[in-house]
Amino acid sequence: MTDSLRNFTENISLVTLFDFVGTLAFAISGIRLASAKRFDLFGAYVVGVTTAIGGGTMRDLLLGHSPFWMSNAFYLVCSAIALVWVIVFRKLLVRQQNTWFLFDTIGLALFTVTGIEKTLTAGFPFWTAIIMGTMTGAGGGVLRDVFINEVPLIFRKEIYALACVIGGLTYFLCLNLDCSNVVCGVVCGVVVLAARVLAVKYHLQLPVLKGED
Amino acid sequence: MTDSLRNFTENISLVTLFDFVGTLAFAISGIRLASAKRFDLFGAYVVGVTTAIGGGTMRDLLLGHSPFWMSNAFYLVCSAIALVWVIVFRKLLVRQQNTWFLFDTIGLALFTVTGIEKTLTAGFPFWTAIIMGTMTGAGGGVLRDVFINEVPLIFRKEIYALACVIGGLTYFLCLNLDCSNVVCGVVCGVVVLAARVLAVKYHLQLPVLKGED
Amino acid sequence: MTDSLRNFTENISLVTLFDFVGTLAFAISGIRLASAKRFDLFGAYVVGVTTAIGGGTMRDLLLGHSPFWMSNAFYLVCSAIALVWVIVFRKLLVRQQNTWFLFDTIGLALFTVTGIEKTLTAGFPFWTAIIMGTMTGAGGGVLRDVFINEVPLIFRKEIYALACVIGGLTYFLCLNLDCSNVVCGVVCGVVVLAARVLAVKYHLQLPVLKGED
Repeated sequence: MTDSLRNFTENISLVTLFDFVGTLAFAISGIRLASAKRFDLFGAYVVGVTTAIGGGTMRDLLLGHSPFWMSNAFYLVCSAIALVWVIVFRKLLVRQQNTWFLFDTIGLALFTVTGIEKTLTAGFPFWTAIIMGTMTGAGGGVLRDVFINEVPLIFRKEIYALACVIGGLTYFLCLNLDCSNVVCGVVCGVVVLAARVLAVKYHLQLPVLKGED
Repeated sequence: MTDSLRNFTENISLVTLFDFVGTLAFAISGIRLASAKRFDLFGAYVVGVTTAIGGGTMRDLLLGHSPFWMSNAFYLVCSAIALVWVIVFRKLLVRQQNTWFLFDTIGLALFTVTGIEKTLTAGFPFWTAIIMGTMTGAGGGVLRDVFINEVPLIFRKEIYALACVIGGLTYFLCLNLDCSNVVCGVVCGVVVLAARVLAVKYHLQLPVLKGED
Repeated sequence: MTDSLRNFTENISLVTLFDFVGTLAFAISGIRLASAKRFDLFGAYVVGVTTAIGGGTMRDLLLGHSPFWMSNAFYLVCSAIALVWVIVFRKLLVRQQNTWFLFDTIGLALFTVTGIEKTLTAGFPFWTAIIMGTMTGAGGGVLRDVFINEVPLIFRKEIYALACVIGGLTYFLCLNLDCSNVVCGVVCGVVVLAARVLAVKYHLQLPVLKGED
């Protein structure tokens, strides 16, 4: 195996690994919130799947593509694993909090990069790609909150979707500096991850608009 | 008229009849819930239409098809009839409960079969077809509950969408036993109907995930 | 410049002006409601954008088109201006109420006409065009209310979406009287505007369905 082929294979498996833990973390967040609202097993699974694939599905519909999960059972299986995980490790989930936060953030970063690249490939301008990247990363969480009948969390608390936007801007900075797609993607992903981690560590929040008296 | 032609014509009219009573029942469920929330006539009609056509619309969008109701006024007319029915027979609806439950279940069964067949025709794998069948049957009710700002009922109570999943699995069992499409469809529909009726009769419910303390 | 070219240019700029003030007014309505729910700046912007472009996006998805805003930054920039406006003129918004009501209604009228024309061009029947016009005008407000977790306002109060339906019927009356597209569009827009203004002035409401005891 040549070096470049080995690199390629390793990249593929790393992306698949990130995809796996990200999907798992997204699905688990949906399943836990659904359980807290006393959804049954089926409902919890649907909310888990929706959290995991909802953002990418919106992106694919807007791009006119066939949704990615319709010909690849990977994401439904991941969500089933997430359901089993929540049932089995129910009492340990709080202690696993940091791990799931990390996995969730890896998912956020990866899905943002995927959304940006698919949109650029489809020939849309860079600001559309940033929107699509953000939607891929954060859209599933919005659908989840609509299903459990809560005001979407990402609109009110912490910097979540904004991390995707910042990552997206970095992507285009790199692209304009003539970096390769891989470099743009890696830098973008790292920036999303760093922005999200720093936001949570230092409780960074966007200001709320003042009321109108 | 030959026997096979007569059979064909009767099948068509039976499917149309089922489509009619199913659409009527779905629309009525939306209109009643909207009225309970004090929606005006227009709002009640929109919620009724959404309940009736929402699932199939999601399916068609995901499959990349033009939504079925956009070139066929049948479903909007059915929903208008449903609105008139609710206004005229307002006080009798409770007494008609069993009839509407039956019609609703016929709709659920038919829409599930339609969703499965459209998805298979489009060339997707069988598990995607089961998801699409379930979405066609149960998706309108989810949109209805989002519009009236309630947690979707099917995620919390009774076996509803799961009946579609069980029916879908039967469809593929039959397909693998080399049954014709018509046989697969009929068996699937009967299973959905039976599963739903038994679930309500014996109060069968899926377990709720235990909380995390 | 010939007369007809001048007319054309003036029409274009008038439509652009209406598009601008309409988008602005739609976005401001979303931003204000989001602020009242204590959304942060990012959340308020997303709700503003959704209110402004949500209806047209649903229309384009149903028609199988690429959503209009994905290759034209105009609408995102308008929504950003709306956000700045709400921040800067926060205390004056109540006093500007009548102006924003007018702009909102201009937007409603223009978006209805756009929806109708796009749907007819795509070859769908006139009743589908009326639905699409109504969805283009009123759909963004429904998405806005789902995001802020309220029962959609247009289903309960005042004549809003019904103004679009009435305008749409007028459009087809004109079309059947052999009027040009421009005349149909102008008459439809004026009727939407008039219906909405009269409805608010005289507190016209549709009846609410009586409960079932």
